[in-house]
Amino acid sequence: DRPFVLIAGPCQLESRDHAFAMAGALSELTKKLGIGLIYKTSFDKANRTSVSAQRGLGMDQSLPILADIRATFGCPVLTDIHTAEQCAPVAEVVDVLQIPAFLCRQTDLLLAAGETGKPINLKKGQFLAPWDMKNVAAKIVSTGNHNILLCERGASFGYNTLVSDMRSLPIMAQTGYPVVYDATHSVQQPGGQGTSSGGQREFVPVLARAAIAIGVAAVFMETHENPDCAPSDGPNMVPLDQMEGVLGTLLALDRIAKANPVVM
Amino acid sequence: DRPFVLIAGPCQLESRDHAFAMAGALSELTKKLGIGLIYKTSFDKANRTSVSAQRGLGMDQSLPILADIRATFGCPVLTDIHTAEQCAPVAEVVDVLQIPAFLCRQTDLLLAAGETGKPINLKKGQFLAPWDMKNVAAKIVSTGNHNILLCERGASFGYNTLVSDMRSLPIMAQTGYPVVYDATHSVQQPGGQGTSSGGQREFVPVLARAAIAIGVAAVFMETHENPDCAPSDGPNMVPLDQMEGVLGTLLALDRIAKANPVVM
Amino acid sequence: DRPFVLIAGPCQLESRDHAFAMAGALSELTKKLGIGLIYKTSFDKANRTSVSAQRGLGMDQSLPILADIRATFGCPVLTDIHTAEQCAPVAEVVDVLQIPAFLCRQTDLLLAAGETGKPINLKKGQFLAPWDMKNVAAKIVSTGNHNILLCERGASFGYNTLVSDMRSLPIMAQTGYPVVYDATHSVQQPGGQGTSSGGQREFVPVLARAAIAIGVAAVFMETHENPDCAPSDGPNMVPLDQMEGVLGTLLALDRIAKANPVVM
Amino acid sequence: DRPFVLIAGPCQLESRDHAFAMAGALSELTKKLGIGLIYKTSFDKANRTSVSAQRGLGMDQSLPILADIRATFGCPVLTDIHTAEQCAPVAEVVDVLQIPAFLCRQTDLLLAAGETGKPINLKKGQFLAPWDMKNVAAKIVSTGNHNILLCERGASFGYNTLVSDMRSLPIMAQTGYPVVYDATHSVQQPGGQGTSSGGQREFVPVLARAAIAIGVAAVFMETHENPDCAPSDGPNMVPLDQMEGVLGTLLALDRIAKANPVVM
Repeated sequence: DRPFVLIAGPCQLESRDHAFAMAGALSELTKKLGIGLIYKTSFDKANRTSVSAQRGLGMDQSLPILADIRATFGCPVLTDIHTAEQCAPVAEVVDVLQIPAFLCRQTDLLLAAGETGKPINLKKGQFLAPWDMKNVAAKIVSTGNHNILLCERGASFGYNTLVSDMRSLPIMAQTGYPVVYDATHSVQQPGGQGTSSGGQREFVPVLARAAIAIGVAAVFMETHENPDCAPSDGPNMVPLDQMEGVLGTLLALDRIAKANPVVM
Repeated sequence: DRPFVLIAGPCQLESRDHAFAMAGALSELTKKLGIGLIYKTSFDKANRTSVSAQRGLGMDQSLPILADIRATFGCPVLTDIHTAEQCAPVAEVVDVLQIPAFLCRQTDLLLAAGETGKPINLKKGQFLAPWDMKNVAAKIVSTGNHNILLCERGASFGYNTLVSDMRSLPIMAQTGYPVVYDATHSVQQPGGQGTSSGGQREFVPVLARAAIAIGVAAVFMETHENPDCAPSDGPNMVPLDQMEGVLGTLLALDRIAKANPVVM
Repeated sequence: DRPFVLIAGPCQLESRDHAFAMAGALSELTKKLGIGLIYKTSFDKANRTSVSAQRGLGMDQSLPILADIRATFGCPVLTDIHTAEQCAPVAEVVDVLQIPAFLCRQTDLLLAAGETGKPINLKKGQFLAPWDMKNVAAKIVSTGNHNILLCERGASFGYNTLVSDMRSLPIMAQTGYPVVYDATHSVQQPGGQGTSSGGQREFVPVLARAAIAIGVAAVFMETHENPDCAPSDGPNMVPLDQMEGVLGTLLALDRIAKANPVVM
Repeated sequence: DRPFVLIAGPCQLESRDHAFAMAGALSELTKKLGIGLIYKTSFDKANRTSVSAQRGLGMDQSLPILADIRATFGCPVLTDIHTAEQCAPVAEVVDVLQIPAFLCRQTDLLLAAGETGKPINLKKGQFLAPWDMKNVAAKIVSTGNHNILLCERGASFGYNTLVSDMRSLPIMAQTGYPVVYDATHSVQQPGGQGTSSGGQREFVPVLARAAIAIGVAAVFMETHENPDCAPSDGPNMVPLDQMEGVLGTLLALDRIAKANPVVM
């Protein structure tokens, strides 16, 4: 029944200075609004559309920055991992490990993530039905780890398009695990710009409102002070200066939703 | 900025007594909640999955009943028409003519409906993109009639399944016409029971919450005092005794949504 | 085990002269190739994307032309009907009545068509699963008419796109009715050009080859001597002068397919 | 213009004896039919639906078996790899490395595979448009390796269902790389049996016929002497004793298709 948590940050860890600026701004904003923040950023964009797209700073340079952000702002930190080997070292620094959607069926990665004992944010594959996420969760559970988040981020709908089937939120909630709605990647247009993915930033607040009104534990929403210049997911990040307005409405809707939980 | 209007009633006009009982209950409920009611019921189910399924009382028997409901309860009445010939006689009695989704591209039907001058609720075809509804509306506009509602009721998603793409609500709103969300037919499973359509009643309040939180002019929600015994759409009608609870939450969400309109 | 029949002609009956020229050319070509021809053309495009698009000559002007083509070239004639009232007069002239895909669930239209006793080509709706066509056929059968063809013409796949699920051919064949593959409308991009449908003419021969190799009774392929100037479906009609090459390959594949029927 | 190559074998390497029996039977059959064979089998099923499903013998046990099959039967061998580290050791033994569909966007895996210099069979992700495979291929090409095969294996179509869009074959062929049609996984029903994937074995020959008639360089078709007892993909493997009949028809269709190439 608590207010939703915001999972936010720039898609990619661009530099120590940029990460600190973003974390500082988000930390201040969420304190002002009275909601929890999990700072999200990626050290490696491991599945870019194009081989020539920028991948990020890498694990070795990024982990100390994430550790410092955590220490400085006192907020939990989330990042995504791409190989089984990354799980243990990343888990020493971050609070939540995230499994990318394309990798949500890779058993070894799931087991390695589970074995860290850390909370795991499981992105639902674009190719997966919501009821099939129980099998994904069971792989984590098999390691003895029950700290699981299930995350909707859109389902394949024809080519170069995703659709958010909002029924997936209560369906996944029936597992008992908290459900996250990733409003950023749900508006991605995979491969939609030829050699990079497009996005529909204008629908992020729209779909986030829908998810919040149904009732979710957390909203995932990437942001950037200048999305059009961001090295990845620019088309679907919310400009930082619009976040307060968006979150204000979400908070008001969240109170109604939490007071009137959906019964399935 | 006004509260959403409820378009509701039993899927099928079963009898004068049943229609009066349902209209009476819904009229009382919506007065209590302070929202507008448009009473919806069909005189003919013209596109049943099976030829042996019950079609309804027919136009001649039904129009006087609709007229009496209108006079007795003082609420506008909506029904769907299936041929160009039905438009004029039906328009003499009802307040809103509805174009069924399968028929939303039939030019002659649209022109005949438009020519009545009545408000027209245009259901978006399961096979149509939201941006293509402007072409459907233009057929009505060509008759000089600008009283148009655009209604989302789910898009084809694989076989026997619909998905509600909530982006369609603000996309259709960009036409300037009021947007309706049909929560009943959006949870239909077309042909899902072999010789009849299935449905997922439990998702009606879920998807209605999502649509309301984005902002719609009206919610369409069929109801029945005993859906499991209804002659059509039973699997996706909300039991009458649950309507107050569902609408109460929708109203609270609607106030937030209307105070914070989505900007596109 | 007989060779496939070709259902072909220009999408729209443009004029007596044009219809005769097309029918003459197709009649000659199919005689040369030793395959049957059913001449197809529409007297009314009743569901154009845009209200300002050209609809055709209309029933009254068209029926005598169809009758004359039939008499002159000795080939059966097929056209589509859009209302129950059109069925009887059209059936006096044509050999096969066609139910448009959008209308494949309209019970009265199906019953009126069935009652003519004529063969009925049932287009599968873009929103329908192949196994649901048995319910559509049952509406025709309820009139005592068993002369039924089931026609695949693409299923909704995201927005503005259709996909041909080739599994539908043997699934529909399990009803015992002959199966037709409509290669023209399967490559339509509904609403894909803003105020008209687009199409991918280059894929007509591709998908026709696939369907023929599986085994179908007939291929539906619209053609025009100058598709880019045709009043409708231009983007997906095959230029007349390419038909011979396309059909030659289909005939060779058909022989193999018919000698090795798919067993389900 | 050469006949299609068959990529076949049991889904999973079950044991040395089983692998030899299958390779022997397929080698004999393809010699009799005059077509090339690439023996396919997996040493690890790394993305099973359920954590308790059988994964296979593992890389260390399997590579010597694959080497011996290659030596004994003189046929090239193909297997799939799941991590960048596996690429080099596997490439020492096998002739073709295969990238699993879920992993087709993982840049490091693609680069490691490319760097082996071996031919790479790139499965198209269920979430990817055919025109987006050029970006996947470009990652391999960036390593200087141009030995690329592009493989269609179905696209997401609603939940728990794939559809084969046969247009993808000529679209992918426009890259200039040989195109493979995987008839086995295209009929998978992902997660369709609750804790395992279902399949529709009866459609393997159907869809293979369609692909061959359009024109492909190779057909991928898993087989087993007793599919119902196979540890994985049983529902979509063709029984070994039916392979000759299936391949015979495909060969006849292939001759027609190769003599009449699709022009795009």
